[in-house]
Amino acid sequence: MRILITGAAGMVGRKLIARLAKDGALRGRKMITALDLHDIVPPQAPVLAGVDVSIHTGDLSAPGAAATLVASRPNVIFHLAGIVSGEAEANFDLGYRVNLDGTRALFDAVRLAGFAPRLVFTSSIAVFGAPFPEVIPDEFHPTPLTSYGTQKLISEALLADYSRRGFFDGVGIRLPTICVRPGKPNKAASSFFSGIIREPLSGQEAILPVPRSVLHTHASPRSAVNFLIHAAGIDGDAVGPRRNLTMPGVAVTVGEQIEALERIAGTEVVKRIREQPDETIWAIVKGWPTRFEARRARELGFVAEKNFDEIIRAHVEDELGGKIS
Amino acid sequence: MRILITGAAGMVGRKLIARLAKDGALRGRKMITALDLHDIVPPQAPVLAGVDVSIHTGDLSAPGAAATLVASRPNVIFHLAGIVSGEAEANFDLGYRVNLDGTRALFDAVRLAGFAPRLVFTSSIAVFGAPFPEVIPDEFHPTPLTSYGTQKLISEALLADYSRRGFFDGVGIRLPTICVRPGKPNKAASSFFSGIIREPLSGQEAILPVPRSVLHTHASPRSAVNFLIHAAGIDGDAVGPRRNLTMPGVAVTVGEQIEALERIAGTEVVKRIREQPDETIWAIVKGWPTRFEARRARELGFVAEKNFDEIIRAHVEDELGGKIS
Repeated sequence: MRILITGAAGMVGRKLIARLAKDGALRGRKMITALDLHDIVPPQAPVLAGVDVSIHTGDLSAPGAAATLVASRPNVIFHLAGIVSGEAEANFDLGYRVNLDGTRALFDAVRLAGFAPRLVFTSSIAVFGAPFPEVIPDEFHPTPLTSYGTQKLISEALLADYSRRGFFDGVGIRLPTICVRPGKPNKAASSFFSGIIREPLSGQEAILPVPRSVLHTHASPRSAVNFLIHAAGIDGDAVGPRRNLTMPGVAVTVGEQIEALERIAGTEVVKRIREQPDETIWAIVKGWPTRFEARRARELGFVAEKNFDEIIRAHVEDELGGKIS
Repeated sequence: MRILITGAAGMVGRKLIARLAKDGALRGRKMITALDLHDIVPPQAPVLAGVDVSIHTGDLSAPGAAATLVASRPNVIFHLAGIVSGEAEANFDLGYRVNLDGTRALFDAVRLAGFAPRLVFTSSIAVFGAPFPEVIPDEFHPTPLTSYGTQKLISEALLADYSRRGFFDGVGIRLPTICVRPGKPNKAASSFFSGIIREPLSGQEAILPVPRSVLHTHASPRSAVNFLIHAAGIDGDAVGPRRNLTMPGVAVTVGEQIEALERIAGTEVVKRIREQPDETIWAIVKGWPTRFEARRARELGFVAEKNFDEIIRAHVEDELGGKIS
């Protein structure tokens, strides 16, 4: 089978490629024969015996770009491409062009080519906006408070309608906060959720800018890839017309995150977390959703970690070779 | 003040114009000095002393059309334009071009002109899709089952984001089924809801294709205009970031509609309704929402009829000169 991945140079894209390369097949059944990897910068091509890997670069919203990309008629498309929340908020035109027009161009190219593939789209819990109930049910209305969340919501609506019409067989997965993100801290308000685990485990200090009582939902990068793979193979009829699913995750307070770190890595590691309240970050984080029911996704077989200890262990195994500094 | 109405040739548009012409002011406060009336066919211009009426025709999604239309910098825009559900379903490209691209072109023209008017957008309960709870709360998620509903939902999302960013001060109003619609029966599956009242009142036979137990929510054309006028003057801060409101209406069974008709017009009139079950129409109607909470809209002062008798009386007064055949 042939697989297309947009946003292939991003963190989740790279991990998905590595997983597909390792498995050699989708869900142990369909051998992968070709991989089309797309991003605005050249994604890294895995060396795979017997797999035809093609690299594509460019802007999906540019005229003709999406049609060229899908000309190979992939069986499965993972549409991960997009610019992040902060950038979409800072640059209105760029956000709508990439996150809305780019997505619509891809969807329309598939529609016009008429080959009806499975299409997996990474949406986000940013489609939700405060105020929230204590646990957000699957039937809760999306009222985004960012342009990024708006663009994701619109893409979800298009995905559902294009699927209903049979142009493709789409599944939208709303990812919770991905934790522990590998790499360096960034300027995202959510950066500390990963930072307070990642930095101490690597012998470095981390800043905690919010109270320990802050509750949030997380899934590991490994789970994000599992969600994508599961969504690629799921029975579309079982999903039904409501094509966009809130993914499960682990809802924990920051205090519980730190307790899990202490259980796994010890007291000395936890001492590397320094509390330094930041009112600006806290004000942003206060408006974020805390806990999701994610009943439909669980019933459809999407599985996240059971607790935050597992999330930390996934990070230690996948990023640190099993070792703690 | 200057007012722009798109879709000015449509049923609601014509009634809104007549009401504004009669009042001469918006909510009794701001004198109307200019009216810009837009549609794809030339809307009828009211003759109004002291009011500068301009007629505009064309496709809002055509390059430059929206910018030209808003160049007069109206204080209030009523965006009613759109093609109806059946047509949007039958013609995919036309539906997305008019209902999505046309709306976005208008919103972007306002954004780029930078004059931040009040913008009232007529959305629809078609943003919802079955299955439903017995009463649909304001926080229920929109999962449209038509392209029309999808286009309305996307327009709502854009309206909320553009309002949040201050490009305009938008209010989206989700209209229930408008009943009694004046004019002739049409091929819409909902046509009978009006037909079983309108035709008997005019001495004609009407077909009832569904069981009397079917429950649905209605508001009169007069209420639709009231909603628009109220939305034009409402305090945006009171609306808050959730800019799209489900309007109130009268939830009644078809049987209760007929009982109201009998109370108002007598037994002989009701005998003009002929029951002729149509499985196709019933199958469509079964998927429609029945009853809405509309709590936020009521709290914000939107008022519909109290019962179906009032809806019939509004029709008799507004369309039949107070007389029943």
